Parts: sequence; structure tokens; C-alpha cells
Amino acid sequence: MTQNNVRRLWAEGKPVLNGWLSIGNAFTTEILAAQGYDSLTIDQQHGFLGYEALAPMLQAMKASPVTPLVRVPWNAPGDIMKALDAGALGIICPMINSRAESEQFVSCLRYPPHGQRSMGPTRAVFAHGADYGKWADSQVIALAMIETADGMKNLKDIVATPGLDGVYIGPADLTLGLTGRKYPTGFDREEPEMIEAIREILARAHEAGIKAAIHCGNSAYAARAIGWGFDMVTLLNDVRLLAGAAKASVDQARKLIGEQVAEAAAPKNAGY
Amino acid sequence: MTQNNVRRLWAEGKPVLNGWLSIGNAFTTEILAAQGYDSLTIDQQHGFLGYEALAPMLQAMKASPVTPLVRVPWNAPGDIMKALDAGALGIICPMINSRAESEQFVSCLRYPPHGQRSMGPTRAVFAHGADYGKWADSQVIALAMIETADGMKNLKDIVATPGLDGVYIGPADLTLGLTGRKYPTGFDREEPEMIEAIREILARAHEAGIKAAIHCGNSAYAARAIGWGFDMVTLLNDVRLLAGAAKASVDQARKLIGEQVAEAAAPKNAGY
Amino acid sequence: MTQNNVRRLWAEGKPVLNGWLSIGNAFTTEILAAQGYDSLTIDQQHGFLGYEALAPMLQAMKASPVTPLVRVPWNAPGDIMKALDAGALGIICPMINSRAESEQFVSCLRYPPHGQRSMGPTRAVFAHGADYGKWADSQVIALAMIETADGMKNLKDIVATPGLDGVYIGPADLTLGLTGRKYPTGFDREEPEMIEAIREILARAHEAGIKAAIHCGNSAYAARAIGWGFDMVTLLNDVRLLAGAAKASVDQARKLIGEQVAEAAAPKNAGY
Amino acid sequence: MTQNNVRRLWAEGKPVLNGWLSIGNAFTTEILAAQGYDSLTIDQQHGFLGYEALAPMLQAMKASPVTPLVRVPWNAPGDIMKALDAGALGIICPMINSRAESEQFVSCLRYPPHGQRSMGPTRAVFAHGADYGKWADSQVIALAMIETADGMKNLKDIVATPGLDGVYIGPADLTLGLTGRKYPTGFDREEPEMIEAIREILARAHEAGIKAAIHCGNSAYAARAIGWGFDMVTLLNDVRLLAGAAKASVDQARKLIGEQVAEAAAPKNAGY
Amino acid sequence: MTQNNVRRLWAEGKPVLNGWLSIGNAFTTEILAAQGYDSLTIDQQHGFLGYEALAPMLQAMKASPVTPLVRVPWNAPGDIMKALDAGALGIICPMINSRAESEQFVSCLRYPPHGQRSMGPTRAVFAHGADYGKWADSQVIALAMIETADGMKNLKDIVATPGLDGVYIGPADLTLGLTGRKYPTGFDREEPEMIEAIREILARAHEAGIKAAIHCGNSAYAARAIGWGFDMVTLLNDVRLLAGAAKASVDQARKLIGEQVAEAAAPKNAGY
Amino acid sequence: MTQNNVRRLWAEGKPVLNGWLSIGNAFTTEILAAQGYDSLTIDQQHGFLGYEALAPMLQAMKASPVTPLVRVPWNAPGDIMKALDAGALGIICPMINSRAESEQFVSCLRYPPHGQRSMGPTRAVFAHGADYGKWADSQVIALAMIETADGMKNLKDIVATPGLDGVYIGPADLTLGLTGRKYPTGFDREEPEMIEAIREILARAHEAGIKAAIHCGNSAYAARAIGWGFDMVTLLNDVRLLAGAAKASVDQARKLIGEQVAEAAAPKNAGY
Repeated sequence: MTQNNVRRLWAEGKPVLNGWLSIGNAFTTEILAAQGYDSLTIDQQHGFLGYEALAPMLQAMKASPVTPLVRVPWNAPGDIMKALDAGALGIICPMINSRAESEQFVSCLRYPPHGQRSMGPTRAVFAHGADYGKWADSQVIALAMIETADGMKNLKDIVATPGLDGVYIGPADLTLGLTGRKYPTGFDREEPEMIEAIREILARAHEAGIKAAIHCGNSAYAARAIGWGFDMVTLLNDVRLLAGAAKASVDQARKLIGEQVAEAAAPKNAGY
Repeated sequence: MTQNNVRRLWAEGKPVLNGWLSIGNAFTTEILAAQGYDSLTIDQQHGFLGYEALAPMLQAMKASPVTPLVRVPWNAPGDIMKALDAGALGIICPMINSRAESEQFVSCLRYPPHGQRSMGPTRAVFAHGADYGKWADSQVIALAMIETADGMKNLKDIVATPGLDGVYIGPADLTLGLTGRKYPTGFDREEPEMIEAIREILARAHEAGIKAAIHCGNSAYAARAIGWGFDMVTLLNDVRLLAGAAKASVDQARKLIGEQVAEAAAPKNAGY
Repeated sequence: MTQNNVRRLWAEGKPVLNGWLSIGNAFTTEILAAQGYDSLTIDQQHGFLGYEALAPMLQAMKASPVTPLVRVPWNAPGDIMKALDAGALGIICPMINSRAESEQFVSCLRYPPHGQRSMGPTRAVFAHGADYGKWADSQVIALAMIETADGMKNLKDIVATPGLDGVYIGPADLTLGLTGRKYPTGFDREEPEMIEAIREILARAHEAGIKAAIHCGNSAYAARAIGWGFDMVTLLNDVRLLAGAAKASVDQARKLIGEQVAEAAAPKNAGY
Repeated sequence: MTQNNVRRLWAEGKPVLNGWLSIGNAFTTEILAAQGYDSLTIDQQHGFLGYEALAPMLQAMKASPVTPLVRVPWNAPGDIMKALDAGALGIICPMINSRAESEQFVSCLRYPPHGQRSMGPTRAVFAHGADYGKWADSQVIALAMIETADGMKNLKDIVATPGLDGVYIGPADLTLGLTGRKYPTGFDREEPEMIEAIREILARAHEAGIKAAIHCGNSAYAARAIGWGFDMVTLLNDVRLLAGAAKASVDQARKLIGEQVAEAAAPKNAGY
Repeated sequence: MTQNNVRRLWAEGKPVLNGWLSIGNAFTTEILAAQGYDSLTIDQQHGFLGYEALAPMLQAMKASPVTPLVRVPWNAPGDIMKALDAGALGIICPMINSRAESEQFVSCLRYPPHGQRSMGPTRAVFAHGADYGKWADSQVIALAMIETADGMKNLKDIVATPGLDGVYIGPADLTLGLTGRKYPTGFDREEPEMIEAIREILARAHEAGIKAAIHCGNSAYAARAIGWGFDMVTLLNDVRLLAGAAKASVDQARKLIGEQVAEAAAPKNAGY
Repeated sequence: MTQNNVRRLWAEGKPVLNGWLSIGNAFTTEILAAQGYDSLTIDQQHGFLGYEALAPMLQAMKASPVTPLVRVPWNAPGDIMKALDAGALGIICPMINSRAESEQFVSCLRYPPHGQRSMGPTRAVFAHGADYGKWADSQVIALAMIETADGMKNLKDIVATPGLDGVYIGPADLTLGLTGRKYPTGFDREEPEMIEAIREILARAHEAGIKAAIHCGNSAYAARAIGWGFDMVTLLNDVRLLAGAAKASVDQARKLIGEQVAEAAAPKNAGY
């Protein structure tokens, strides 16, 4: 039986550091799988990638201890089951607005009699072992995103969905959903009403005995969220990591070169 | 006529900041093309990519002001001409050891009567205009890598190759070539004999009226190289930028979380 | 803010010439983007392409003034939002049969509070600028296809959908939907009842203050449609352009060669 | 008109041997298309492949007499119609639970007035001829999978769906659906209750005048199924064929090498 | 034994109409394979495609009567043999400058004892039959391009190369090679000195008992070339066919729309 | 330091069972990597795959204990070094005809001062660890193919090449090279002169203190070769395993079905 690293960490009472893949490439995946994350989520919803990119990305994680997760584009059985058959050990489903949607979602991750997942783990058996079908129901993780006004309204019903492992907060959408265009979009909310909403979701999840996760834009906020009690935090995604590092590299070079030029142009023995 | 941004900067006496692409992906290319580099080189030699990945990467740079360059796998006519036909405006050729190799290299970048390039700029006319064939000889850049003991020995002959636009130093290979396993491999050499070799190449290039470029591992060294007189510096590549930023993100999160835990574990009312 | 070329032309009272991409290839896209179309639609429904082909096609249009549109396979939130996040500035949705379907469709193109689009324009910010999220709701175009008997029956309700920018007529399906197998399939209908239906849709759209577009099979019909008052016409797609031009090239060569052979075989001095 | 080989065999009263493709590759497809199957099904549901892999696989079958079929990921109009437009001559739809689902499925394979399929057989006309649109309704095959408790319960209603060509049994899912975790998962069921269920489905299908197909795990069971009256049997898929043959090759080599070593180690002239 | 259509036509004294593929796509290949060409050449030299694109293009031609040819990037054994193993039935090799280069080229197309081709027709046996290895030497076609000053100088030696099937003229490069920048680049030369060179090549080839082919830019010139005695003519490539047809479509639509607008603006009852 | 499994086995005096990949697919690679081979060679020469297919195949082997090897298309520095940078731990080079070619080959696998390999193991460090550059020279395996008349003639010189780890026999080419068309092509030669040649190569290799490997077509011959003293044997490749297994599956099914039909047709109560 493959050890789902995320479940193991939770069982040990430890928080999970999740990375986020929006670039559709197996090599960037392999690079990130070597940087110390506990899990990596391939974002099939907003990421610039489809199923054909996702498949080799799952292969590229196999040699690492990182748990492979997938955020599906939508609450659609075909997409969810294909991601699992390809080797994902957990699914994050966007835009869960009601108990019915939550139940529909969870049913796609469990084989009968616990759900409606169809049997055919074509690559999963090569990723996780020939006995995959036996333990998949108990190891695969179902995380429902709470990120809309409706999701917030139906929170108590959603967190009580049998078989749901946790909720996942998308702070950008949640802010739009709860406050419209009142605030700039983005993660790492500081508005008291948003912090309140976030902690409310956390509290309801824990009351229901399930986990809570949150998407973060920097490590400091992620650490704060762990401090609040979150069980999983997602750090900055690959696109932003790469863009930010490249920009810093160019800016620093330009600055240093500019200083040299300025220095060279300055009067040499001004100091007598 | 497409303005080759690198030639324009050189004509204005400005140094060129070059980025480096070792990931075979059009989206990472698009991301880096937006970060302020003057040129971006797709590394077909050591990069984890072949021609099929390179092609859409050149397309992904088209909308940006960045000049597209390609480092070819080897001094092979087929590879050089294909990169140019696909839209590269300059070629960096590894491991040039002699004047004959340098002449062979340059001949592949120029149409007869100046060289042996074959006419057929299938995508280049879509990238750079229908008149591409007219001005390509004068705009496309030829950079020969000096990175072996033989290359160093034949330096004066190489830099005098008609039509060669510049030399490009690969410090890791050059160090191996000149000193074998004496020093650890890597860029940004500090050993006096290597700095001497690097400045020797720079001096010989400038004496011959051509440009000098160097591969760097950080922005500070790149700025120093510009201070020495280099005309182009290459900053940290995409793989290292991404790996470094991801590792920093994870490490910072773990550190902050660790501090929180330690703080929480500390005696709460120590102060009475 | 990116100027959506289609909205600009409409604001200036000008018709839009739309091209159509059914071949899944970034180079054919780049070729067509250079031929003078105002917009290009990637056909994810009937085109021989999926999301993974579509993505680099959107990148290949970026350097041109052409507005990138996508016809999605079906009225499915995941597909619509993914196309927008990838950089499409408008969506054509097939087979809209009712007001409810139209509302569902439009909701996927607008962020809360105007719709249910999820925030995460991963590539769109690289295609259209960092401020994309601010103006996307007002620039992205929603076109509902009217091409079924039900769509025709519910036309008035559909055109009045808040936020819908226009309707798009698929004449082949509309003819099947309204008349079954009575007529041969195809575009450019000449049957009076079909022309009546087409002009009825146009009239109802304009009454409702929205635009009307139609798929055409040749330029003459397209011009006629503009004469009727259509705001956008789609010209022959890439597959038919390529097949037609190739066939004409071969046929002309065979004909000319045949004439030569006949001429050579004819008695040389027949004329005394 | 393209001869649909499966319909021809059925018209001749012959059973159909169907192969199964779970590897997303045009060369493995070409290889299997040369081994004597009557039809080959590309498994877009459990196969490790998406639309972009499926498309060239359909092209790779064109030169062979094999009938191309596709199992879609789910009962979704977009997926079904895209597979047909790409050249599939039949669709196997998983998890049909009710008459309504069956009708929805069948409607996606037939043009109006018989269904809701949208007209645009972009590649199908290159695969099957310019007159494809005329005969597609009568040649394309619709097979509904019976593999759940609900599907079994509603069997009589499902088999009576107008336009449905047959039912297809997925024994692994059916066993899970009817008996939960009572038995190990897999094909080729021997439990009396499962054989009874299988023969029940067969009987109901034939009563309704439609065909019955079953997924098998070995040729002997497939032959038995034909003996029971099944009209189509699916043999072992590409993944298992390849894995099994490779394992046998390695095991045999190790065994023979081991015997040699043992022999060599044995006393040489034991026999006087 | 696969009938090489080109050899058959030549045996019947008929000229060959060759199409040209510079777009790396299996669907554009399938489209062109249906338009009546005798052979189609995939241009791996100037085409915007590498080996990975070429492979499915060869598969896409299999169902048609078209003979698959490949122009390799350069006279390199690896590229030539890979194209043959993938199923090409002939190779056009650019830039043959001497008898030695010609012999080297031909040797790569023939198995020992006639050449140095390595045995391993991995896909060719699926494309052309299990007996491929037996007849390949006599069916595969070797065409050497004459397009440089050196090639012209060594013409007599080149055409006499044992095993060479013909020469292929690249008029754009040949003009550059013989006259430098005196004339604009392009096909379909009308300058007397170029026509003389072209007919000289044709004459020397026929004297040596081999075939002559020429790359053309329009069907009229192709027919003229057949009239001169050429055995194979290449018609306009896919890129130019598509670009030309698209431009004509847009231009015609704009012209017709402009006329309508002018007409509508004209005084309606100008008379009295 | 990554343990090169092949070197470890040789150090332990054990033979190596090598698998062979001619299908360009990461999933078939993952499947074969799970079947018990000691090493897997990706055939970039005759395989239906190029660099872009090879790259994810190397990633797909990473999680297994199998040693990744590559047979390059030709003795070309660019191809050899790219395969190593991508993660191959050994190179099999076809058609080595002389000591000079052998030395050239080996030089591409070793860094200065032992060779001319260029430093830049972009993916290799992710596949095998950050210290890859330090131990690569001593772990990467160089195998020269002996498969031509010239290679046979120069055998003693070739096997004595410093740094060469072994020779690899291609029996099909060797038979062609030594005997022309005298015998049918194929592996597993039984002709006394071929067996003599094979054992001669083995003997010369062992005399020179290097290893000997041979390509086999079935496990029995492979075992015999081990019995002769070979250090590595290659078993049947993926294409033949898959084709053979599929054909056997279909044939068996048809046979069993035929028997059933015959039985059913036989007079039932013939025995009164």
C-alpha cells in the first residue's frame, strides 16, 4: 500500500506544506518535487495545462516523497476519475456551493458501495502498486473548495458530507464572492471580515472532524494560517515563483550595473 | 526590418542582459519574456528540450521586445540553420576549438556569397517580416563559445574570423578545460588564473573588434563582468531561478512555522 | 488595459471579419493571424484539437492585432473558464436552447457579483496585462449560438439575457434543426425559409441591443450578410482554405500538363 | 460510404473481436491495428490518454480495416461529439444508469431530427469520405455500458431506448455495483450470481433487438461469451498485453539462465 | 511489396506532382494527402518541424496512395536513416556539393553490401509490410539537391553516383549560389542564365540515366518544367497555399463589403 | 551518488538483462520498468521516437531500479551529450567502424581532462543527485556497437580504446555486414560463421578487459549467450512484445470461437 504522505502527516498532527503547479511541464514538476514540499497540486482549473500535460507531471512526481494532488477544472465526474486513474492521491474541487454538490464530488472518489467511481486505475497501479484498488477508498483525499457566497451559506451542511476529508479555501474567489468588488483581488486577506470568514470555515471544518486548508501568497501568511490551526497551506505557485525570481535577478543586475556606471562617472579624486 | 534589440543596444554602447531557458516550455518562455531581459537564449545544448520544444518557445517570445537567441547542441549545419529558420536572431555555438570550426560555424549563418546558409526562412518571415531574407545576413548574430583548452590556444585566430560577431565564455567548461578537476565546477570563477583567462578572452575579442559575452551565476558577478567591459552577460537560468525560489519559499515557511511552534511551547506566564 | 479589437470595431460601427481555426497548430494560427482578419476563433467544438493544442495557438496570436476567440465544445463551465484563463477574449457557445442555458453561459464569463467565473487568469495576465482582472468583465465577449429549433423558439428570451453580447448563427445546424433532412447541409443558405430565419435572428438581436454574427462559407455571402446588417461574419475555415487551394494547385498543374501533352501530340504543320 | 466493419460483421451474423487501447500513442495503435482485431476501442475513460492523444490514434487506424471506437470518459455531449468528429465510428458510454441517461447519450450520436448532434465532422470527412454527413446516423454505433446497480435495475428501459445499438458490460464495475466488496475486482467473473447477471443483460438486449458486448480478460472467456451469444467481445488491453509479455520474457530468461548456472555448477562426470 | 507510386509513374513515363509540407501537423498532412498529389515531401530542413512532428505525418499519409518523401535537414546519416525507418520511401538531400557527398548520401539509403544503412525498419514494416527489408534497397528513392556553385561545378560527377535516382533543383538557393545577390530570391526563375543552369542540370541528369526534379512556386511554371522534360515537379507548399487562400478570402470580403458601403452611400434617385 | 545498477551487477559477476524501447511513450516505459529488467535502453536510432519523446521516458524510469540507457542515432557529439544531460547512465553507439570512431565516441561521455563532454547536466542532477558531475565519468557506461565488416576488421583496436566499457553486438547488421544478402536478416543467428564472429567479438572484448553485450530476439538465445559468457543480453523489444502478445490473443480467441462453432454445428445425436 502506498503511503499517502498527507494522511501520514495529519495522523502525526503535523501541518502539510503544499506546492502549486500552474505550468504544464514534467520538468518543472520534477524540479519542484525536489524542493521539500509535502504535496504538490497540479492545477487543472486555472493552470495553463490540460489532461495531456497533467499525465506526465504525475509520472514526474513518482520518484519523490511528494503526494500528488490535482485541482480539477470543475465538479465533473469524468475529470475527477481521470485524474485519480492517472495517479492523483487527492482531488481539490473548486466552487462547491451546496451539500448536493459536495456529495456528488465525494461520490466520484469512492468505489461502490461508497460512491460511484468506476474501476480502472490504469496508471494508478503502476504509480502506487497492484493492490491500489483495495485501499484507494481510504487513502484518496477529497477536499471541497469553499470560495463562494453560497458555499459559505451552506458551510455547515458541506463540512458534514460523509467521506469528505476537508475544505480548501480559495481566498481570492471567497473575497469576490462575499464582498464583490469592494477589495482588490488576491490571496493573504487582511480585511477583518475576510479573516473572520476564513476562521469561521476553519472552525466549522474542525467541529465536523475534517481538515482545513488555505491557499496562500507568501510563506509568512502560510505560517500564520498554521498558527490559526490550518492543517494544510499552499505556498506561492510555480508561475509566481519563476516570474518573481527572474524579475529580482534582472532588477538586481540593472541596479548594480547602474551603480557601477554612476561610480565610474563620478569625479575620481574628489576628496582632497 | 526587424530591429535586433541586441545589435541596437550594442550600437548604443549599452550592455545586454541575457536570460537563459533550459526548460522546454512556451509558457515559462512567455513568463521570462516579461521580466525585463534584453534577450533570451534557448539552450538546445544542455537544456532539457529539443527542436520540437524550441519552436513554440520562439513563437512565445514574438510579442515581447526580447531578442530570441539559440544555443545549438553542436556545431552542426542542420541544427544552426533550423534554429534560424524558426526565428532565432542569433546563435551561440558551443565548443569552438579552432579557426576552421569558427569559419564553419559562421558560414551557416550567412547566405551565399557570404556563407552557405540555405534559403528557406519558413517561420522567420512570419516572426520578422517578409523582407527577412534581405537583411538577415546583417542582423543575425554569431557568437562562438570559448570554453576549451584548444579554443583558448587558438583564441587569436578565432576572434579574427570574418563575420563572427563575438565570443561567449562558458566558465564551467573553460575551467574544466584549462585546469581539469583542480577546482569545483561552476560559474562565477574567482581563481586568479581563471579571471585572467576570462579577461584575456575579453581583451582579444575587443582587439579584434568583436563583442564578448559571459555566462554568470548571479547578478553581482554579471555586474562585475559588465564593469570589466563585457558586452553581454547571462543571468541565472530558469531551472535555478525556479528551484531556488521554491526552496526559499518552503524553507521560510518551515522556519516560521517552527518558530510558532517553539513560541507556543514556551512557558506562557514566565514573567511573574 | 488590452484593447479588444472586436469591441473597438463595433464601437466604431464597423463589421468584424472573423477567421476560423479547425487545425490544432500554432504555426497555422500564426500564418492566419497575419492575413488581415479582425479576429480568429479557435474551434474547440468541431475543430480537430483539444485544450493542449488550443493553448499554444492563443500564444501564437499574441503578437498580432487579431482578437482571440474560442468556440467551446459545449456549455460547460470548466471549458469556458479555462479558455478565458488561457487568454481568449471572447467565447462562442454552441447550441444555446433556452434562456436558462444562456444565463448559465454568460455567468461563466463574468466574475462575482455579475457571474460565477472563478478568479485565476494564469496566462491571461501575461497575454493582456496585470490589470486583466479589473477590466475582464467589460471586455470579454459572450456570443450564444442560435442553431436549433428550441433556440429559435426561445429566441426573444435568449437575446434579452443580461450580459450577453450577441448571438452567432450556425447555418448548417440551424437548417438541420428547423428543416431536418429537407435540404443538403452546409452554410450560405439560399432557401427563403432559411434566409427568413437568419434575418429574424438578426432583427431580434438588434432589437435587444446586442450584436449578430453568422458563419459563412464564402466571401460573397459574408458581404451579403454584412449588407443585411450583421456585425460579424466568419469566413472560410483553415481546413477548407488549405484543401481548396491545394486542390486548385494540383488541378491547374494537371490541366496545363495535359494541354502540353495534347499540343505536343497534335500534328505540327496542320495549317497549309 | 465507409463500411462500418462492425455493422457488416453483425449483418453477416458474425461476432466482433474488439481490441482495447489504454496507452495514448499512435504507434501502439498502428501496431495493434495490424494484429487481426475487427475493431479497436480507444479508452478515453480509464486509459492514460486525453483528446490530444486520441486524435492521432484515430488517424493511425485509418489505413487498416479495423473499425475505430471510443469509450468516452463520461456521458457528456462535448466529449461524445468530439470523438465522432475526430473519426470514431462508434461510442461506448460508461455508467448508463437510466433510460433518461441512455436517451441523452443516444441523442448525441444522431443529427436532428433524430438527435442533437451538431454538424461539423471536420476530420471525419477525411477519414470516411465527403458524404459522411449523409450516412453517419445509420452507421455510427451507440453502446451503453451496463455496470451499476441502477443500470441493472433499469435494464429493460435502457435496452428499449430508440436508436441504441447495444449494451456493453463492464464486469469489474458491475460486480462492484451488484455485490460491493464481496468478491475481488476484475473481469471474467465466475460467481454464479455474476454469470446470471451477465446472461440476464444479454437476454434483455437480444429481446429488445439490440446487440450485447462484454469486456474480457482472456481469450478463453471471450470465446465462452461468444458461445453464450454475445455479439462482441473485448480482449485483453494493450497495457496488460505488453506488461504480461515483458514479464514472461524476463522471467523465462532468468529461469533459463538460472538453469544454466545450476547445470554448470553441477558435478560434470557424475555418470560413470 | 509496397508499390512506390513515384517509381511506378516513372516506369510508365509519367511525371510526378509532388506536394510540400512545411507545417508540422498530421492533420494538414491528411488534408493534403487527399488533394491529388502523387507524392508529398515533409520538409525537415526548412519546415517548421522536427522528427517528432514528422513521425505522425508519415502515419497520416499511410491510408492514401501518396508516396511519402522526406527532405532531411542535412546530409547526416542519423537523420536520413531515421526518416527511412519511420516510413519515408525517398529522401531529398539538400546541398550536395560533390561526388563524395553524393556517395555518402546514397550509402545511407542502402543496406550492405550496397551501402551502410543500419537494419531496423521499426515503423517501416508497419507502413509497408513485413517484407520491407527485402525490397527497400530497390524501392527507396535517393534525390540529391543541386543548389550551390560547387554542386553545379561537380554536376557530372554527382549525377554519375551509383545508386543515385535523381537530382532535385532548389531554384532559390541555386540562384543565390550562382549569382549571389544579383537577383531577388525565389523560385520560378526567368533569368536566361538561371534557365540555362536549370536545363543544364536536367540534361546532365538524363544523360546519366537518372531523373530530374524541380521546386516550383506555381502550377504554370511546374507545367513548363514538365514540358522541358522534368520528371518531378514540386508545387506550392502548404504554408503558401494556406496564407494565399486566407489572404484572398479576406481581401475579397473587404472589397465586396466596401463596394456595398459605397453603393449604399451613393445618391439613390440621382436622376432628375 | 547514484548507483548504476549495471555496474553493480557486473561488479558482482552477474549478467545484465536489458529491455529495449522502440515506442516513444512514457507510459510504455513505466510499464516495462516494472517487469524486472536490470536496464532499459531507449532506442533513438531505430526506435520511432526522437529527443522529445526520449526525455519523458527517462523521467518515467526514475522511480524504478532500472538503469536508463540510450542508443543514439549516430556517433554525433550533440546527440550523445544531450542523452546524458537528460539522465541516461550509459550510451550504446551504433556502427563503430574504427579506433578513431571509438575514441571520438568515448570522448563525448567523459568530462575534460578525460574527454570533451561539456558540463551542463541540467536534468541529470535531478535524476541522479546534485553531485552528479563528480562521479559521472566513472559511472556512465560507453558501449560501442560492433556490427559492420570494418568494425570486425578493426575489432582489436576498438576493444582497446581507453575508457570504453564494452562492445555491443547487433546481429542483424553484423550478418549483413559480414555476409551481405546470403542469409535472411534477423537476430539469434545460428549460422556457424556468424556464431564464430559473435564469439570472436566476445573473446576479444574479454581479453581487453571490457564487457560484451548482444541483442537477442528471444529469451532462450539470450540465455545461451549468457552461457557463452556475455555480460549483458537484450531481450525482445516493446514493439515485438506487444505485437506478438496481441496476435496470440486474437488468434487464440478466433481458434476457440471456431472450435465452438464447429462443435455446435456437429450432429448432436450422431450416436444411435
